[in-house]
Amino acid sequence: MSEFDLIRRHFSAVGSRRTDVSLGVGDDCALLRVPQGQELAVSIDTLVAGVHFLPDCDPEGLGHKALAVGLSDLAAMGAEPAWVTLALTLPDADEGWLRAFSRGFARLAHRHGVALVGGDLTRGPLSVTAQVQGLVPEAAAMRRRGARPGDLICVSGTLGDAGLALRRLGAGESISEYLRDRLERPTPRVELGLALRGAATAMIDLSDGLAADLGHLLAASEVGAEIRLPDLPLSPEIRDRLATDADWDLPLASGDDYELCFCVPEQARARMGTLAERLGIGLRVIGRIRPGKGLRCLLENGSTWEPPRAGYNHFPDAG
Amino acid sequence: MSEFDLIRRHFSAVGSRRTDVSLGVGDDCALLRVPQGQELAVSIDTLVAGVHFLPDCDPEGLGHKALAVGLSDLAAMGAEPAWVTLALTLPDADEGWLRAFSRGFARLAHRHGVALVGGDLTRGPLSVTAQVQGLVPEAAAMRRRGARPGDLICVSGTLGDAGLALRRLGAGESISEYLRDRLERPTPRVELGLALRGAATAMIDLSDGLAADLGHLLAASEVGAEIRLPDLPLSPEIRDRLATDADWDLPLASGDDYELCFCVPEQARARMGTLAERLGIGLRVIGRIRPGKGLRCLLENGSTWEPPRAGYNHFPDAG
Repeated sequence: MSEFDLIRRHFSAVGSRRTDVSLGVGDDCALLRVPQGQELAVSIDTLVAGVHFLPDCDPEGLGHKALAVGLSDLAAMGAEPAWVTLALTLPDADEGWLRAFSRGFARLAHRHGVALVGGDLTRGPLSVTAQVQGLVPEAAAMRRRGARPGDLICVSGTLGDAGLALRRLGAGESISEYLRDRLERPTPRVELGLALRGAATAMIDLSDGLAADLGHLLAASEVGAEIRLPDLPLSPEIRDRLATDADWDLPLASGDDYELCFCVPEQARARMGTLAERLGIGLRVIGRIRPGKGLRCLLENGSTWEPPRAGYNHFPDAG
Repeated sequence: MSEFDLIRRHFSAVGSRRTDVSLGVGDDCALLRVPQGQELAVSIDTLVAGVHFLPDCDPEGLGHKALAVGLSDLAAMGAEPAWVTLALTLPDADEGWLRAFSRGFARLAHRHGVALVGGDLTRGPLSVTAQVQGLVPEAAAMRRRGARPGDLICVSGTLGDAGLALRRLGAGESISEYLRDRLERPTPRVELGLALRGAATAMIDLSDGLAADLGHLLAASEVGAEIRLPDLPLSPEIRDRLATDADWDLPLASGDDYELCFCVPEQARARMGTLAERLGIGLRVIGRIRPGKGLRCLLENGSTWEPPRAGYNHFPDAG
């Protein structure tokens, strides 16, 4: 069986049908129609076995996550997901593995009305690259740049769950279903991103950890910030862990949260409460944008916590 | 140094500036504007070390080729290249390697007015995934489907050069500069693809070898074909080799040609000659579309040659 047969068998029914796809999988290119007045938002991400996930992880979860990380990027711009391409590199053509992977990928694609329009299947060390494409009305996209002194800093969901899951798995411990889901099946905050159009002054998705990603937003906006660590949204398991060792790097710097961090003017505070209720998502104000530079993380007693300067670094040795 | 610093250092000046890029590298997504009346053509391809290229190959050539294979797909649709995203997975952050890779990538991007608008740099086994995006007026794209009985089958350039280069390198032999260039720096036939808009009834790019790729075109068009092997366009080195061993699988099935194979009505024959002269590209009529199914390859003496049924198969063992 060739890669063409494998693609046909496992990926032909993936995702949604869309009328804006003139030509889908099976030619040299897909052909897509972008409506007038809309901009195209694109993002590409690679997940590598042994770096971003454990080689023996649940393939259905990996299929989900390969798409979720891209949808999270679209969410952070306020873009509506439309199309995705998938480049899959596999050590061998394990049909059971492919079936589970494509099921996880397809389910999430379908939930967000995303069509798989192209791909590449090659043999090699296990890795997955997905490029998502979304649509956003001209000038409506939210960027990392745009936060102003006085703006409230908000975060969706909870922080540190995936990080705790990874630490426990790395130590050979078992993890709760909740933590496993947070690690393997993150929920991209697409509806929230769309709802924040016209409201957020700046936004970023949290993939490298709050400290690093909020740092990118601050640098792009040329402002500083102060956040109150007791106000961070935390699940019960993270609260328990912090009660034991008070290691705030867990929610600040362990990454893989796939929540949104965004800024709104003070007068939008009440609206955030209404929005959280309507979407059924936690939304927490964790601090405020300040003039100047840098991020200050305040503990309960008023002293500061120094998170690591960067998130996960792929190339710590490079000069 | 983090991957962000590496990206900034080596990729910020890659490619061309374009006024249709609202937001380039450095946010969660790039934002792009597709002009009214144009469709978006997209294609994603992965090159894996040890599968598509030798791990110690010239990185400048690899940068060139990573983009060239995608541009060749755009050419095959008659699309004009516009933007590219690049996902690069590296075992380590070798700055000399990165500099050479980005130089090769940038030079080709610049030649075709392509802007690098996003990417991902991760640590892992060496591989490169690029997604190209191009523009083509609505309904003007050429597809694999559309060839009609009686149409002439044409091929650009020469066939089998990259295949011979790979065979010789695999046998530890040295190769000529010409063969090395054909293997490592294929020329995507972008101008030819654009010039064929409205002329070709069907088109495909040759990445898996003429027999397999023309086979895809025939299957999509629901027609058969007859080609005359003595009419295949061959470089002197391939001619010499064939004079020795008469192995026609070399030009038919060794792949990596990145030439265009397309069909035109009989009355366009003269126009093909003019076009070849204007573009300075070889264009050769190699056969004709027939009713029915399948590809017949005729030798000089009128007997037939059976090429392998498929091109390079990544998963020959899969059930």
